[in-house]
Amino acid sequence: MQQLKQQVFDANLDLPRYGLVTFTWGNVSAIDREHGRVVIKPSGVPYETMTVEDMVVVDLNGEVVEGKWRPSSDTATHLALYRRYPSIGGIVHTHSTHATAWAQAGLAIPALGTTHADYFFGDIPCTRALNEQEVAEAYELNTGKVIIETLAERNPLHTPGVVVYQHGPFAWGKDASDAVHNAVVMEEVARMAWMARGINPHLSAIDSWLMNKHFMRKHGPNAYYGQK
Amino acid sequence: MQQLKQQVFDANLDLPRYGLVTFTWGNVSAIDREHGRVVIKPSGVPYETMTVEDMVVVDLNGEVVEGKWRPSSDTATHLALYRRYPSIGGIVHTHSTHATAWAQAGLAIPALGTTHADYFFGDIPCTRALNEQEVAEAYELNTGKVIIETLAERNPLHTPGVVVYQHGPFAWGKDASDAVHNAVVMEEVARMAWMARGINPHLSAIDSWLMNKHFMRKHGPNAYYGQK
Amino acid sequence: MQQLKQQVFDANLDLPRYGLVTFTWGNVSAIDREHGRVVIKPSGVPYETMTVEDMVVVDLNGEVVEGKWRPSSDTATHLALYRRYPSIGGIVHTHSTHATAWAQAGLAIPALGTTHADYFFGDIPCTRALNEQEVAEAYELNTGKVIIETLAERNPLHTPGVVVYQHGPFAWGKDASDAVHNAVVMEEVARMAWMARGINPHLSAIDSWLMNKHFMRKHGPNAYYGQK
Amino acid sequence: MQQLKQQVFDANLDLPRYGLVTFTWGNVSAIDREHGRVVIKPSGVPYETMTVEDMVVVDLNGEVVEGKWRPSSDTATHLALYRRYPSIGGIVHTHSTHATAWAQAGLAIPALGTTHADYFFGDIPCTRALNEQEVAEAYELNTGKVIIETLAERNPLHTPGVVVYQHGPFAWGKDASDAVHNAVVMEEVARMAWMARGINPHLSAIDSWLMNKHFMRKHGPNAYYGQK
Repeated sequence: MQQLKQQVFDANLDLPRYGLVTFTWGNVSAIDREHGRVVIKPSGVPYETMTVEDMVVVDLNGEVVEGKWRPSSDTATHLALYRRYPSIGGIVHTHSTHATAWAQAGLAIPALGTTHADYFFGDIPCTRALNEQEVAEAYELNTGKVIIETLAERNPLHTPGVVVYQHGPFAWGKDASDAVHNAVVMEEVARMAWMARGINPHLSAIDSWLMNKHFMRKHGPNAYYGQK
Repeated sequence: MQQLKQQVFDANLDLPRYGLVTFTWGNVSAIDREHGRVVIKPSGVPYETMTVEDMVVVDLNGEVVEGKWRPSSDTATHLALYRRYPSIGGIVHTHSTHATAWAQAGLAIPALGTTHADYFFGDIPCTRALNEQEVAEAYELNTGKVIIETLAERNPLHTPGVVVYQHGPFAWGKDASDAVHNAVVMEEVARMAWMARGINPHLSAIDSWLMNKHFMRKHGPNAYYGQK
Repeated sequence: MQQLKQQVFDANLDLPRYGLVTFTWGNVSAIDREHGRVVIKPSGVPYETMTVEDMVVVDLNGEVVEGKWRPSSDTATHLALYRRYPSIGGIVHTHSTHATAWAQAGLAIPALGTTHADYFFGDIPCTRALNEQEVAEAYELNTGKVIIETLAERNPLHTPGVVVYQHGPFAWGKDASDAVHNAVVMEEVARMAWMARGINPHLSAIDSWLMNKHFMRKHGPNAYYGQK
Repeated sequence: MQQLKQQVFDANLDLPRYGLVTFTWGNVSAIDREHGRVVIKPSGVPYETMTVEDMVVVDLNGEVVEGKWRPSSDTATHLALYRRYPSIGGIVHTHSTHATAWAQAGLAIPALGTTHADYFFGDIPCTRALNEQEVAEAYELNTGKVIIETLAERNPLHTPGVVVYQHGPFAWGKDASDAVHNAVVMEEVARMAWMARGINPHLSAIDSWLMNKHFMRKHGPNAYYGQK
């Protein structure tokens, strides 16, 4: 558990390092599947003074098992995703500027190039709006549910993130570090897509064969990017 | 008073740290309500060489009570706001890039997402233009008056900032540090709104129930964001 | 002369510090009016390794009087401005991103707010195109001439810069440091104007009385901004 | 060979220094023409921990001659360019934000000003799309071929870069350092062109005589920019 706390702590500190957060607007968690425990950032604690011992451990129902602070107010969203998707090991939520702009625009981040296709297979979808009742009752849980509804039949490791309508990005991955990596990619492709659409408003999407090639050369069974 | 001078000094240094000012284009003040004293940055003194002893102390009529420098040229604006709103303890004025762009555009910064709603309840309004006489006579005082006219019946802690037409942002809060915090938020939501409108020009505003939820989970009587 | 060389050297180093230049794309000069000598950056020498002794001294006809390097390739432009305007003491040329974008767009940077009016009285004009002959014969001198033609009857200290068509900004001031200051302002107001026009394409210009007020409270005979 | 490995290593580290890469999204190579050897970055190795000994040496058919890692997955693209153009000594590939936005937009970066003309003679072309078969079979080699097809009769040192459709920029130069220099220029002019077109959508291109003048004063037989 100490090792997982260290990983989650390090991944949280990566958020300001990569320019993804202002103040405390972000949180990272990771899961220990064997023991059914999730480590997550405490709510509203500044990155500058946070230590590894400030990490909070909760079970999959959100009960605090260890730690002196309240867990992130978004904990219920994280847990809904862990319960539904056995393949994901880490989750990140931020209000990173460009991805949040797409969330506010209420639009999916379109797949316009190979930078996107190297990590996301197809667009990065935007959830539908939550209705008044969904927000009033169990808002954070319903945020998790609407992400799951949006992913539908997609493989969450082939679409390792979405933007939540009028809110901001959630990203995930095999572990905490991989989730942060995907959050950085999402912010960067959100920025490129904003500019590319500004230059040429008629853009639709990357050619399907080019998307397949780039995703598969990194993530397919015969991947040849990087070292073995 | 020494403690308040230190707070105002620290808050002024936060302006370049958060990228809100170029040269000397910004100032922070705070008020000691018990003694009716306001501490404010001196006019045109560079941040690099400024010390806590350079802070200027004025009374609520703008008379210098302590300090060797002239107070900020915007002092009369600050004082008008302190006299009108007993709940505010600190005020910030900057020409931060994105918020100033909205001021130059003559438009309110629309509430488009939860980043905005976490701090501002509703849009960040833009004042009307000052007319020729208002500028000629007591310009800085009239800037304060037009901010008050713009806020009208709003609670200043629920709308902790406005943009002044063709000029730039003023923000405030419970104290100097809180005012700077709100100025950083205003700059960031101004940037996001500029992009979101660029991506989708037909945007209007965040769903009212989502705005209420986010503002209230941080600022309402049953707030549950952060630690108790 | 050593003091002036130091000032010009320091002002040149301010260009990368303020983010105004990439590689060697900028130069600053200053004039000693008494002796008719101009100190200017050598051509194409990197900022990282440049020393004060690398500065080049030329007379008002461009003859090198002191220094081991060729002067900036833009020297003839600087000299034309010094000969025409006795009031200016320092000149800066850069390809700073946002001001250059306006130069490429072939448009004056409009006066849209008080940030602009604090330093520039009216818009920052864009020169006409140089024709083929003007470019072929004495290109750098003709760049100076077209700047002078563009300023026409304006006071160069009230319009301390222009953008040269399809090229980039020139700025000036009382001395080298003041010229850099104005170049920083020009870049920042170019950025704000780009955004403000993006938000509201119908913008024209700041109200004349507000422009007058801001320029005069900093530069007029009864200025009250800053310290005496 | 050790000297070339050092040059390639240094040039690769310049990519994050100039803000051209996120994570490992970039690679630089250089060629030793005498021995027919190319030094290139290993695939997917982080810049933070990479050492000069991690550089990979391949022959012009892509066989690894020295080094413990796989070469960059883009090696076949680099080799195609070295085989076709004897004048180029170094090549850079990145996903730098603004140049990639133009690639995603599927448009050439237009020559709008002298910043561009100082390094690129004419626009920076965008390749056609690769078809499904070209992507399926020898994708990286075909990327090199489509760059060559796009350059057609142009001198590669007068057009030291292109953007590959829906992918990103490739740049080159006399050696590794010069190639990085041109990649930085391409990113900067891509940014300026994006803004300039945003300000004035009707822009076409810089006047031909001004383009000629600027390119030739730096690269022509009578160049007078910089020191002899």
